[in-house]
Amino acid sequence: MATSIIRLYVDHPLGPGQSVPLSGDQAHYLFGVMRLSAGDTLAVFNGCDGEYRAQVAAVDKRGGTLMAGEQTRPLQVPPDLWLLFAPIKKARTDFIVEKAAEMGAARILPVQTQFTNSGRIRRDRLQAHAIEAAEQCGGTFVPHVTELQKLDTLMRDWPADRRLVFCDEATAGARAPLRDAGHRGPWAILIGPEGGFSDVERSRLTRLPNVTRISLGPRILRADTAAVAALTLWQSSLGDW
Amino acid sequence: MATSIIRLYVDHPLGPGQSVPLSGDQAHYLFGVMRLSAGDTLAVFNGCDGEYRAQVAAVDKRGGTLMAGEQTRPLQVPPDLWLLFAPIKKARTDFIVEKAAEMGAARILPVQTQFTNSGRIRRDRLQAHAIEAAEQCGGTFVPHVTELQKLDTLMRDWPADRRLVFCDEATAGARAPLRDAGHRGPWAILIGPEGGFSDVERSRLTRLPNVTRISLGPRILRADTAAVAALTLWQSSLGDW
Repeated sequence: MATSIIRLYVDHPLGPGQSVPLSGDQAHYLFGVMRLSAGDTLAVFNGCDGEYRAQVAAVDKRGGTLMAGEQTRPLQVPPDLWLLFAPIKKARTDFIVEKAAEMGAARILPVQTQFTNSGRIRRDRLQAHAIEAAEQCGGTFVPHVTELQKLDTLMRDWPADRRLVFCDEATAGARAPLRDAGHRGPWAILIGPEGGFSDVERSRLTRLPNVTRISLGPRILRADTAAVAALTLWQSSLGDW
Repeated sequence: MATSIIRLYVDHPLGPGQSVPLSGDQAHYLFGVMRLSAGDTLAVFNGCDGEYRAQVAAVDKRGGTLMAGEQTRPLQVPPDLWLLFAPIKKARTDFIVEKAAEMGAARILPVQTQFTNSGRIRRDRLQAHAIEAAEQCGGTFVPHVTELQKLDTLMRDWPADRRLVFCDEATAGARAPLRDAGHRGPWAILIGPEGGFSDVERSRLTRLPNVTRISLGPRILRADTAAVAALTLWQSSLGDW
């Protein structure tokens, strides 16, 4: 069985010789769950300074301290790709955030559409899922999860240079033209809710100047599947795969 | 909100005027949960005859009968693509089966590798997940889920004409060459367990005559993410998307 080193996200500057204080939760995880003790090593990253080897310097009941050693991996920032999605049931929303972080989205934006059931999200919980995914997948970057925003508002202020991929169930049969889109600047992928987009939303989206509509095949995909499929198509056509 | 008609999988021949008996579970779902009564309509499919409109003909406590009307959709068989995967934690295994059915795998084969923790699966439960996914995604076909088989055995008897896509974490940096593989016959995708493949397995796999190795990007993907990503790449390059 492949053994894996513990990877911990810390919200603290990192550099050789840097001392890193642990929160109570982190101490509980490292010392209570994973049974580390003073002198043991792990990997730490903070989303902006790369990955460092670290040693447990001090253990106490409510916390502890790590001491960072050498850098083991530089920061790898994913391509400038946003994922916009309409929150669905809790488990599937968590899943979308986890997958977006794993697959290299740079920013995760929950959006409220006309057919979105969910009127609120727990941003901190979703951010924690993105952090856990980065810990698991060996990432050194953690995408920021934004607060829930109305799709209307986002569309109104949409940045002119960011191309939007719009996964439209109504675009049956069209081949994914991502590879041909040629746009090398910032991108975003928009995944609709289970009920699809409203006619008003669809017509507003298609009138945006920088929109690419893609189809995800002849079967209806759930929103979480569509998110992973669209991220795959984008990463393999235009991203860092 | 888009209203959606109830779609029910039935294990019974279908055709215009065909009477379809309901199991106790199906009757509970239709009459108890969804509150249908005599005369109401729904869609039924059986994985081989396409989709039919059906009307509730009789309701009783332990069952009931549907009467099939006209065909509403012909059978759409997905491309001849197998998904082989090593079972992981329950929720993620269920997820892989659901996604494989949604994304148009023709057959789902759980395999036991050297690093597979799980020594057994509940085939009937996984098959039920595949059926539910077909009900949800508007499919008329249901992929068969096989019993757990040893990867070794499968490799020994591997059909000479079925090309195998092998998602190898060790193939870093290589671009997915699926589009160039050109093979138009039957295919299979193999997803390894969380611990990866053993050296023995990897060398055995790479010695197979009809193997294509692909990479799924610079980040380590969980097995469930890898399954969806590989199915996406295959369907968009060689399948029916």
